[in-house]
Amino acid sequence: MSEFINITLPDGAVRQYPKGSSALDIAKSISEGLARKVLAADINGSVWDATRPLNDDAALKLLTWEDTNGKSTFWHSSAHLMAEAIETMFPGVKFWVGPPVENGFYYDVDLGDRTISEDDLRKLEVKMAELAKQNNTYIRKEIPKAEAVQYFTEKGDEYKLDLLQGLEDGAITFYTQGAFTDLCRGPHIPATGFIKAVKLTNIAGAYWKGDERNKQLTRIYGVTFPSQKQLDEYLQMLEEAKKRDHRKLGKELGIFTMDDDVGPGLPLWMPNGTIIIEELEKLAKETEQDAGYKRVVTPHIAKESMYITSGHLPYYQDSMYPPMELEGVKYYLKSMNCPHHHKIFAAEQHSYKDLPLRLAEYGTCYRYEQSGELFGLMRVRCLHMNDAHIYCTHDQFAQEFRAVNDMYLKYFKIFGIDKYVMRLSLHDPAKLGQKYIDEPELWIQTEAMVRQVMTEAGIPFVEVPDEAAFYGPKIDVQIWSTIGREFTLATNQVDFAQGRRFKLEYINQENQAETPLIIHRAPLGTHERFIGFLLEHYAGKFPVWLAPLQVKILPISDKFMDYAKSVLEKLKKADIRAEIDDRNEKIGKKIRDTELMKVPYMLVVGEKEMTEGKVSVRRQGKGDLGAKYVDEFLIDVVKEVRERVGE
Amino acid sequence: MSEFINITLPDGAVRQYPKGSSALDIAKSISEGLARKVLAADINGSVWDATRPLNDDAALKLLTWEDTNGKSTFWHSSAHLMAEAIETMFPGVKFWVGPPVENGFYYDVDLGDRTISEDDLRKLEVKMAELAKQNNTYIRKEIPKAEAVQYFTEKGDEYKLDLLQGLEDGAITFYTQGAFTDLCRGPHIPATGFIKAVKLTNIAGAYWKGDERNKQLTRIYGVTFPSQKQLDEYLQMLEEAKKRDHRKLGKELGIFTMDDDVGPGLPLWMPNGTIIIEELEKLAKETEQDAGYKRVVTPHIAKESMYITSGHLPYYQDSMYPPMELEGVKYYLKSMNCPHHHKIFAAEQHSYKDLPLRLAEYGTCYRYEQSGELFGLMRVRCLHMNDAHIYCTHDQFAQEFRAVNDMYLKYFKIFGIDKYVMRLSLHDPAKLGQKYIDEPELWIQTEAMVRQVMTEAGIPFVEVPDEAAFYGPKIDVQIWSTIGREFTLATNQVDFAQGRRFKLEYINQENQAETPLIIHRAPLGTHERFIGFLLEHYAGKFPVWLAPLQVKILPISDKFMDYAKSVLEKLKKADIRAEIDDRNEKIGKKIRDTELMKVPYMLVVGEKEMTEGKVSVRRQGKGDLGAKYVDEFLIDVVKEVRERVGE
Repeated sequence: MSEFINITLPDGAVRQYPKGSSALDIAKSISEGLARKVLAADINGSVWDATRPLNDDAALKLLTWEDTNGKSTFWHSSAHLMAEAIETMFPGVKFWVGPPVENGFYYDVDLGDRTISEDDLRKLEVKMAELAKQNNTYIRKEIPKAEAVQYFTEKGDEYKLDLLQGLEDGAITFYTQGAFTDLCRGPHIPATGFIKAVKLTNIAGAYWKGDERNKQLTRIYGVTFPSQKQLDEYLQMLEEAKKRDHRKLGKELGIFTMDDDVGPGLPLWMPNGTIIIEELEKLAKETEQDAGYKRVVTPHIAKESMYITSGHLPYYQDSMYPPMELEGVKYYLKSMNCPHHHKIFAAEQHSYKDLPLRLAEYGTCYRYEQSGELFGLMRVRCLHMNDAHIYCTHDQFAQEFRAVNDMYLKYFKIFGIDKYVMRLSLHDPAKLGQKYIDEPELWIQTEAMVRQVMTEAGIPFVEVPDEAAFYGPKIDVQIWSTIGREFTLATNQVDFAQGRRFKLEYINQENQAETPLIIHRAPLGTHERFIGFLLEHYAGKFPVWLAPLQVKILPISDKFMDYAKSVLEKLKKADIRAEIDDRNEKIGKKIRDTELMKVPYMLVVGEKEMTEGKVSVRRQGKGDLGAKYVDEFLIDVVKEVRERVGE
Repeated sequence: MSEFINITLPDGAVRQYPKGSSALDIAKSISEGLARKVLAADINGSVWDATRPLNDDAALKLLTWEDTNGKSTFWHSSAHLMAEAIETMFPGVKFWVGPPVENGFYYDVDLGDRTISEDDLRKLEVKMAELAKQNNTYIRKEIPKAEAVQYFTEKGDEYKLDLLQGLEDGAITFYTQGAFTDLCRGPHIPATGFIKAVKLTNIAGAYWKGDERNKQLTRIYGVTFPSQKQLDEYLQMLEEAKKRDHRKLGKELGIFTMDDDVGPGLPLWMPNGTIIIEELEKLAKETEQDAGYKRVVTPHIAKESMYITSGHLPYYQDSMYPPMELEGVKYYLKSMNCPHHHKIFAAEQHSYKDLPLRLAEYGTCYRYEQSGELFGLMRVRCLHMNDAHIYCTHDQFAQEFRAVNDMYLKYFKIFGIDKYVMRLSLHDPAKLGQKYIDEPELWIQTEAMVRQVMTEAGIPFVEVPDEAAFYGPKIDVQIWSTIGREFTLATNQVDFAQGRRFKLEYINQENQAETPLIIHRAPLGTHERFIGFLLEHYAGKFPVWLAPLQVKILPISDKFMDYAKSVLEKLKKADIRAEIDDRNEKIGKKIRDTELMKVPYMLVVGEKEMTEGKVSVRRQGKGDLGAKYVDEFLIDVVKEVRERVGE
């Protein structure tokens, strides 16, 4: 029997290590600096404690704060640390569950007769910091069920006993750090010392198991970081994000509204929001026209039979609205535009000479999200998608896919999106025929093509195994707003399956029918999420081309109203969105109010301006730019709009 | 007892006539020429035989061929004439019912063992003409039920006996002309001599009472006219209409397609149709922007509660798709955009200074039409509406309503619609509180305002009592295509009710909350019906601004491909929709194929054109326009597009 195991690293290199080595040991063998950052390890696709001994050959990836799974392990361990602090300060409390969440973690606690105050949170933070400094290791212990039941029975902990009921003997583990032991599947970070900064953010009520007939527990939320600097930045970002909250700005600036009688997750776009929608669509249409797309318009419903063909029924049914039954036929609101586009492709005969055929539509889709999941424009039920489907031959694929990626980058530049990551989601060969369609060669071929396109284009991307769509690999695009918040924008997908399911065909050069490849793409995502993102990104101070109102003319008094009107006429003729502030107010107040509405340009007109045929130009946030001739200003602003100059 | 009755004519004049005078007598007293045209009479809102004696005071309107009710009486009498001819030629046949229809009439006949051929139809036409020449009068006779039953029992006519079962004694009439007597409610034209031209158009099977378990009868269709010239024109129009059938052209020109898996009445707009949609929307948006409209975007669904507020539930429920139930709440697809727009109005506070507020949206609505009623783009279930709602004060109403009418006229001019009629539909004071909301003063006030606006504008219109919307008077707009077919395009409606139902308010000059008036308008109707109309109107030969492909460049051979491409680039830069015919075909074939696709301009390029930097311009349907410099052609075509020059 060998005393060594073979460890395959992410770059494909295989190294030998003594049997029983942990991921942390392996990290140390590479570099001490790296080892200090290792929070957990991905072992053959599962997340493990970095300290857990490896006894067999394995594929290993070390997980740090930069990895989603590293971060969530860090926060899960922080929940245990918080529990330890709570138990220390309030002996006798009982714990339910304490998972990591998107930004931090929580623990649901039965405090008995006690209540907890903001002041207590501050004390708990201090206690957590103290326990973290002790740098206690998280110790994993496999434990027989009977023993676990005995432990919690003695403790009188009905919550953990309830959890134990659902677990099988042989799969039960305890984790202990310092004085605190918890029933937990793990994994955890090596030791509490990794946690350098703690902020407990919120206290809420939560019914046990989410059932309002049960006892209400106390849910304590927190967030932790590997450094105080990261926490400071996070708190500052939260503060800024609150000011830039798209729901708040959306209301103040007349962008969108929600209405109880219309329904949750169904925004109504007000006139100002509609201007932004139309400018975005104009950009998309121009860009797509230059790129050789054709536009189509399709209904928002279709028969059940179409969604059986597409596979949406049953695979996507949970995300769809329930059917409407008419004359014995079930109709569904569309959750995606693809099947309708496929029908347009199928309506005419195609030769290889007609391909690629690129069909675009700002299609409105409806998806069912649970009421509790809905959030402003970010999680909605109505989605105006910047959708298109490209039908192409295998030979054309690489060029088309690359052109789509170039389009993403072009848009990022226009919107000043400097930070973005593309994730290439791949299939898992072990799951062919189950999770992924059984076309091993096409998978390998297309994944290789996508990888090559991305590499050649020099676009930064990470590869994520086992996250492809069922019909092909995809690129998920993540972007960051100016204040550093992450948004998932859109995906760019390759599709082998739909073409065949819909019997789509073109006649190839050998005069034979062949199924086209399909690229699904939506670089601007949905109006809902993208405008939500832009509101935060620009803090509502849209660049001129996007601003609902571009110019406000501020006459110093009624005496200059006629002159103001003549300026307005000139601007309107040039399609500049302009208004006059004709209120009987002091100029100072007019300027302040216009600043509040975040109008890019203010033109003050008084005696001097009128006499000289000029306007005094003020730029939002930049102040006075001096007097200009009306035509001079007009030429500048028209150019700024036409070139879509950023903020 | 007076021997005279008072007859009120449509202009309000009251004349005295001897008791027992008929409408025809009254017509004769006015003019013999008029009397020769009188087909029936409207007596106090009911249609009567023109020959029926009047014994009481009455409001009278003489009905001629120009009146819908005059025409339908003519065709109903023609059905009787056809039955007479059939009975003469095929003794012993039995008749079921013979109503007038949209363009003519039919009669359902039980021919026994006989069949009827196209040849028989020609013979019947001759017989009908012969019987018409006899100028037999249609004689009305009130008859006791027992006597009627006896008559048809002796004749062995189970069909008329079946009809008699449903009739009450005292309300039964027979009509006789020549040798033919029928159980009939009437009314009829004075005599058969009015029928000058006959065409029997079709034979079809029809189950008795529409029930397929019953015997199949023979349905014979026909159409008749007061002159041979009118029949000739009608047949020519039918012939032309067949060529211009929007379903045929829609397919040939790649405008739209239907798909069984999407569903009936749900057109998918192909790339060429989408270009027309976008050009129409561009026109609407420009026009509406100039007219001070603001645009909004609203979801396609809403909760049941909204449609209860609006009154769509239950009043409009039959025209709506059935609900989708989600989390215990019913959602409906919108059948109109108004409630969503009202919610946008309600989302902000309004002062009289903000009014009129004009909210526009090319909103997509869904309406349930029975499968059997669906017809191409003309009767569909998905409607892209050129919708807007104008919220205004009472003082602003006349001006706003007039501006809307002006917009209709502006559009008619652009599309070369020379013949149109506006129908002012009024309420019936007797039905206030039932069919119409109970606001007598508002009705009188608004109807007067609408009448005045129409009169002042010099727009031809007819008044139709008792056809208003429940919430206010409306203008129905009928237009005629170039080949004389009538289309109902759109309505312009005044609304008292919704504002109150939705509790919409603005603060008036007295600082009090007041409900705005609402104008509903959709001058371009729906994309579906309007593009269907335009296909017929232009016979698919769209004016340049609307044509999906505006210019086709036809190189004489491959040698001139590079030059053709340089011309294409220039055109594309100027946003002209152009393509090169790069097939290896003779120039003659290229021209013929391009003509078939009805492309407005063809540019032939060969040696001479290339050397001189020119193009040889051919205009669809007009032939060779000679050679022009590329820039010269470009300037002309850009101007033609920008000015939306008609065909």
